[in-house]
Amino acid sequence: MAHVDLNIALLGCGTVGSEVVRLLAEQSDDFAERCGARLNLIGIAVRDVSAPRPDHVPRELLTDDAESLIERADLVIELIGGLEPARTLILRALNSGASVVTGNKALLATHGPELHEATARADVDLYYEAAVAGAIPVVYALRESLAGDQVTAISGIVNGTTNYILDEMTTKALSYEAALADAQKLGFAEADPSADVDGLDAAAKIAIMASIAFHSRVGIDDVDTRGIREITAEQIAAATREGYVIKLLATARRAPNGITVQVAPTLVARTHPLASVSGAYNAVVTESEAAGRLMFYGQGAGGAPTASAVLSDVVAAAAKRVYGGHAPRELPYASLPVLPAASARGVFTIDLTVTDQPGVLASIAEPFARHGVSIGQVRQDADGPRARVSIMTHTAPRGALEAIADELADNPHVIAVGALMPVEG
Amino acid sequence: MAHVDLNIALLGCGTVGSEVVRLLAEQSDDFAERCGARLNLIGIAVRDVSAPRPDHVPRELLTDDAESLIERADLVIELIGGLEPARTLILRALNSGASVVTGNKALLATHGPELHEATARADVDLYYEAAVAGAIPVVYALRESLAGDQVTAISGIVNGTTNYILDEMTTKALSYEAALADAQKLGFAEADPSADVDGLDAAAKIAIMASIAFHSRVGIDDVDTRGIREITAEQIAAATREGYVIKLLATARRAPNGITVQVAPTLVARTHPLASVSGAYNAVVTESEAAGRLMFYGQGAGGAPTASAVLSDVVAAAAKRVYGGHAPRELPYASLPVLPAASARGVFTIDLTVTDQPGVLASIAEPFARHGVSIGQVRQDADGPRARVSIMTHTAPRGALEAIADELADNPHVIAVGALMPVEG
Repeated sequence: MAHVDLNIALLGCGTVGSEVVRLLAEQSDDFAERCGARLNLIGIAVRDVSAPRPDHVPRELLTDDAESLIERADLVIELIGGLEPARTLILRALNSGASVVTGNKALLATHGPELHEATARADVDLYYEAAVAGAIPVVYALRESLAGDQVTAISGIVNGTTNYILDEMTTKALSYEAALADAQKLGFAEADPSADVDGLDAAAKIAIMASIAFHSRVGIDDVDTRGIREITAEQIAAATREGYVIKLLATARRAPNGITVQVAPTLVARTHPLASVSGAYNAVVTESEAAGRLMFYGQGAGGAPTASAVLSDVVAAAAKRVYGGHAPRELPYASLPVLPAASARGVFTIDLTVTDQPGVLASIAEPFARHGVSIGQVRQDADGPRARVSIMTHTAPRGALEAIADELADNPHVIAVGALMPVEG
Repeated sequence: MAHVDLNIALLGCGTVGSEVVRLLAEQSDDFAERCGARLNLIGIAVRDVSAPRPDHVPRELLTDDAESLIERADLVIELIGGLEPARTLILRALNSGASVVTGNKALLATHGPELHEATARADVDLYYEAAVAGAIPVVYALRESLAGDQVTAISGIVNGTTNYILDEMTTKALSYEAALADAQKLGFAEADPSADVDGLDAAAKIAIMASIAFHSRVGIDDVDTRGIREITAEQIAAATREGYVIKLLATARRAPNGITVQVAPTLVARTHPLASVSGAYNAVVTESEAAGRLMFYGQGAGGAPTASAVLSDVVAAAAKRVYGGHAPRELPYASLPVLPAASARGVFTIDLTVTDQPGVLASIAEPFARHGVSIGQVRQDADGPRARVSIMTHTAPRGALEAIADELADNPHVIAVGALMPVEG
C-alpha cells in the first residue's frame, strides 16, 4: 500500500508527550496501515530544550520555536496544558490548515466555542479524546456512537485524585486531611490540590461532555461546582451504614427547558455501577433514550493511557487528511440553555442536629411540606439530649432544598444543618 | 444549513427494524443536523407485507421486492439476519454503490472477508455496531478508539440469555434445566436455545471483535466454543464458596505467534469487573498496551438499544456520503494465525472424584509435573470413602491440561474427571 507522508508537530513533552513520542516511533508501521499515512514527527516544541528528558526523546527534534514548527505541520498535537500559550498556538495551527489533537480540558471548557468555530472555518479537525477521562473513549462515544440517539443524562467519576482520597477515607476511616496528605505523598495529589479537590478539573470535563451530548454551549463557569474539602469521616461512616458510598460525581441532565450541570459529592448506592469504581479509575455512565444505560470504565490519567487516547485521535485525524471527510462539527445547533443550579432536580439528603423534644419532627417536616418537597425517608438517632436526623427526599429541585435548609437553620429546635447532598441510585 | 437527501432502504422489520423506523421518524431533524443529510426512508423490504406491524410503520413503504428497493438506495440497513438472502442482498447493495449498515453477526462471522473486500472495492462503507453487544459501542472502540494502541486481549459477556440462566442458577440455586425453562417462559431464551446455550452466538461476536482488534481474519469456525449445558448447580455452589462466579466468557488473546479465540464457561473472581455484570446486560473488557484495561457495559440486546447502535452507524455512514472519507477498511494487514485451541494459555481448574486412600494425591500430581504444569492450589474434601479434589493450575496451555485429564481418567484411584474450566481474575 502506498502511503502519503504527514508532518506531525508535538507541543509539550511532559509525561504524556514523551509517551506519545515513544508510541509514534514504536508503532510507526501499524499507524501507516491504519491511517494510510506515514506519520513523521518533525519537531517537539518545549520551553527549555536543555531540560532532562527520557532517552527515547530524540534531542534533535526539540525546539523552543513553536510558531515555526507549526508552520510546517499537517497535524499538531498540543500537550502544553493551560490557557496560554496553548490557545494562541492551537488557533494558529487551525488557521494555517493543520488539524489539531489536544488533551487540554481547561482550554476546551473555557474557549471551546472559539476553537470549534475556527476548526469549522478552516475546514480541518479538532480532536480531544484525551481531555476527558484519559484512555476511556467517552468523547468518541458521545460525539459519534450516540449520534443516533438522544442523551438524557451523563454522570461520571472523572477525577482520580478525589476518587482516591474518598476511597482512602472510606476503606481506612481516615480524615480528609490525612487522606489528602497520603495522596500527596504518593504523587496522586498535587502540592496545591485545589484544581482537584475543589472540583474544577471535574467541572471542565463535564462541561466538555455536556457540550457534545446536548449540542449546546456549556463552559466551566456554567457548572455548579462543589468539592470534597468539607466531607467528614462521620459522613462517610454514616453513608457506609446506609449502603452508600460518597463519590465526587460530575453530572449533566436534560430538563424540559434546558440542561443542568453540576459537580458535587454524592451519595451513590452500593448497587449502582459507579459505586465500585475505585482508586484512580474513572467511569462515565450515559443514559439515552434508545440505548438505555451505558458505562465506560478505564484509567482516567497517566502517561500511557492518555497517550493512547491522543494517538487514537491522531490516527483518526490523519485518516481524514488522507481519505477526506471530517469529524462531526461542534457548532451547537441545539443551544439548550444551562439552567440555574437551583433548578437541578434530584434526590437529596440533609442532616440535622436537633434538640430531642416532642414536636421537633413536626416542626422540621413543616417547611418540606410548604415547599412541596416530599420526604422519602427519615432516620433519627438519639445522641444524649440531642438527636441526629437524616432526611432523604423524593425528587425535588435543589433550590427548594436550599430554601428549606435556610429556614431550618432559623428553627429554634435545630442546632446544626449539615450540607445538602445529592443521591444516585 | 442546506441538506442533501439520502435514500434509506430497510431490509427486515422485526423488533429492531420497527424501532429503527420509529427513531428515523422521531429524530429526523436531529439526524439532518448531525450528518448534513435528510434521511428519507424510501422502503421497507419484508417477506410478508400483510403481516401485522406496529402502528408507526407506514404501510405504504412495505414491499416484498428487496432487489428493486436496493437499486434506489444510497444506504441500506440490513436487519433480516441469517446468511441468505442477507449475504446476496448486502453484496448487491455494496456493488450498486450503497453503504450498508447491518446487525448480522452470523453473516459477518462467516462471510466477513467477502463483505469487507466488496466494501473496499466499491469504495463505500460497511458498518455493523449492532452485530456485537447491542448498544455498547465496542465495534467503534476497537475499530477507531484503540487505533492508536495495541490490543493484547478482549474478554466479554456478550450473550444475555446464558448470562441470565447462569445468574438464575447462582442466585436461586436452580438446575440448568429449571433456569432454562424460566428463561424460556420469560422470553429470554428461544424454544430452541442452542445458538445461545451452546455458545454459537457468543462465538460469532468474539470472531468479529478479534478480527478488528488483531487486524486478522477470524471466522466463527476458528473459535473454540463450549456452551453451558453441562454446568451443574454443584459447580456453581462450589464456585460461590471459593469467591468466583461462573460466566460464559468470550475471549481472544494475542500470543507470541498468533491469537487464541474461545468461548467457555469460566470461573470469574468476584473482584473482576465482569463478575458483577448480571442478567441480560453485556460487557466487554479490552486490554491494550497503552490504554490498559477498559470496560464497556450496557444492554446487549433488545429493540431500542440495538436500534440505537444501528442509527449511530447510519449517521456515520450518511455523514461520510455527504462530507467524504470512509470508515477504516478492514483488510486484514496483520493476518495473525488463529492458533489451535490446545495452545490457548490460561489458568484452569479441574475437579476430580477420587478414592480416599494414602498416596492418591501424589499419583494425581504426577502427570501435572510431567507435563510441566505447575499447580497453584489444591482443595480436597472428604465425601465418605471418596474425596473431591479441585486443582487450580498456574498459567498453562489447554492442550497440556487435556492430556493430563485423559491420563487422570485412566488412573485407578480416580473415579471421575470433571470438565476443565478456565479462570479469570
